[in-house]
Amino acid sequence: MRIQTLYYHNHILYVLDQLKLPHQKKYIVCRNWQQVVQVIKKMNIRGAPAIGVAAAFGIALGAWRQNTKNKQRFLSQIDTVAGKLTATRPTAVNLSWAIGQLLDYLEKIKAQDINSIKTWLEKKAQQILNEDVLINKKMAVHGEKLIPRNARILTHCNAGALATAGYGTALGVIREAHKRGKKISVLVDETRPYLQGARLTAWELKEENIPFHLISDNMAGHFISRREVDCVITGADRVAANGDTANKIGTYTLAVLAKENNIPFYIAAPLSTIDLKIKSGAEIPIEERSADELTGIAGKRIAPEGIKVKNPAFDVTPAKYITAIITEKGIIRKPYQKNLPICAEKAAK
Amino acid sequence: MRIQTLYYHNHILYVLDQLKLPHQKKYIVCRNWQQVVQVIKKMNIRGAPAIGVAAAFGIALGAWRQNTKNKQRFLSQIDTVAGKLTATRPTAVNLSWAIGQLLDYLEKIKAQDINSIKTWLEKKAQQILNEDVLINKKMAVHGEKLIPRNARILTHCNAGALATAGYGTALGVIREAHKRGKKISVLVDETRPYLQGARLTAWELKEENIPFHLISDNMAGHFISRREVDCVITGADRVAANGDTANKIGTYTLAVLAKENNIPFYIAAPLSTIDLKIKSGAEIPIEERSADELTGIAGKRIAPEGIKVKNPAFDVTPAKYITAIITEKGIIRKPYQKNLPICAEKAAK
Repeated sequence: MRIQTLYYHNHILYVLDQLKLPHQKKYIVCRNWQQVVQVIKKMNIRGAPAIGVAAAFGIALGAWRQNTKNKQRFLSQIDTVAGKLTATRPTAVNLSWAIGQLLDYLEKIKAQDINSIKTWLEKKAQQILNEDVLINKKMAVHGEKLIPRNARILTHCNAGALATAGYGTALGVIREAHKRGKKISVLVDETRPYLQGARLTAWELKEENIPFHLISDNMAGHFISRREVDCVITGADRVAANGDTANKIGTYTLAVLAKENNIPFYIAAPLSTIDLKIKSGAEIPIEERSADELTGIAGKRIAPEGIKVKNPAFDVTPAKYITAIITEKGIIRKPYQKNLPICAEKAAK
Repeated sequence: MRIQTLYYHNHILYVLDQLKLPHQKKYIVCRNWQQVVQVIKKMNIRGAPAIGVAAAFGIALGAWRQNTKNKQRFLSQIDTVAGKLTATRPTAVNLSWAIGQLLDYLEKIKAQDINSIKTWLEKKAQQILNEDVLINKKMAVHGEKLIPRNARILTHCNAGALATAGYGTALGVIREAHKRGKKISVLVDETRPYLQGARLTAWELKEENIPFHLISDNMAGHFISRREVDCVITGADRVAANGDTANKIGTYTLAVLAKENNIPFYIAAPLSTIDLKIKSGAEIPIEERSADELTGIAGKRIAPEGIKVKNPAFDVTPAKYITAIITEKGIIRKPYQKNLPICAEKAAK
């Protein structure tokens, strides 16, 4: 099965509505950049690499849908669109990375006529999508080497095909290990409040017949302490220069549990997730989402009315808890402060 | 507000239906022991001390509803009822403790006529209920001393009035600290899969105007790591002779997080929860509950059909993570192996 998280055709972006999964497989039609802003904000599409790719198409649509013949106005409007897209979600750096890719490219081609620019920006966005899939596959090949035969792997949230343009980061590694006949099995955290594990990861693994059990987030520690988990692997939303990693809320807890029980904790993330501009995790902005996500589930109210809620969507795992970071350029180990820039440089060449 | 978890009147046990909270406050009418078995099994009533008290009334009803005039048959039927009640849920020791209390008492009075025995068993069950409330209040007075002014306390599941005959264990301590003007605030884990935190603890705290925020279980680590929690306090379902403690799934994880971040982790439990007959947590049976609790929420399906699930209702926190155990006889500290039996002996005197 090839899960298409999003695709672009005839100047329209089609986004698989992840809020309807696993019950319905429906695509949302985005004809303009405003609709792209909405699907990212509302989390119809989520996952750091996936929202990066969506934002790239948002820029392309922000160019395509303009009727102006005034180049200055045209370029300035693209800048506005870039700002709006960047502001949709603060934590994942892939969003600004992908937008930056398009703006850098625009800088190179801005002397061309408006129609050419429109076409080139679409091509560039499509290239980012295609490359994301290739990058995931490279990451999977590197990461798979860390997975022992018969490994029982715990994963959190959804770092699968649905979180990317295809194949997945953490789930890409798991897919690859399965494909190579390693007889792995997976424990899937349901991942409250959005239930990306129960709804999305469970769906992806089921579709591919990879053996798994669903658990609630607070059960992970129980199974880790009973030696029923051999390693933990998750994706990432932003990795700071020192290796501190922001990822879906709950990741920090898994890393602490892994350390306490002496099993490895891996992050799988493309280099576009690594943000060398920030020194440590303390600088990563943590998105706070709406209280409704917690007081209700699937539209059904569970908690009493009128109560206060905290709902941070991410947490930061200090680098010391991370055994290795799996990237498309290979596996990065400590000291991250030294090895992350080396890897990034190698990639830039 | 006085929350009545259960009460007995005119040979009928009324059980507040906790599955309907916080939306509805409805009592289930139990006229016979079979109905008591059902409300415990289905978790209409839950919480180690509360199900103990319910089981005591189950025995009383098992005596009361008999029409036989044959003493031997009468006593043997009570034995059968005791077996059925004990088998409802395996982890909490209070269940067998309370049933044991009634059977021991029955042993003393079994020479009396059947009608007298019936009356005495009802009185004994009522005494266990009354004492449970008193015990909670004593525990609260001892435990409150551990809570600093302005403390930000994290709690898990519901160890409140609803988990007991009234007042609560962990929430009893929190209530007491609040009553004494300590200006505390509480972080409430929602506690998947049954959502005892979101449904029950949030409801209790709201009713008493104790400041709190609801979070999902996987957020606890985030707030603990950010120094936004001063201590963790939970109830218990069974404490082994060495201090290892079974409690609601997720408790072990909180204890590890507390240790990693150098904040105290407290258990509040009456002596009836301490099981000196078992050496360590490895001997505590862990109840596995139905998959539906995890694949759906409040009757709404969330995960794909036909997937496998693990659903342990409890986990075991090794004694080394527990800073202190709060009981009605005072605060017990390490070494638990030595201090738990001393405290239990003192209580027996």
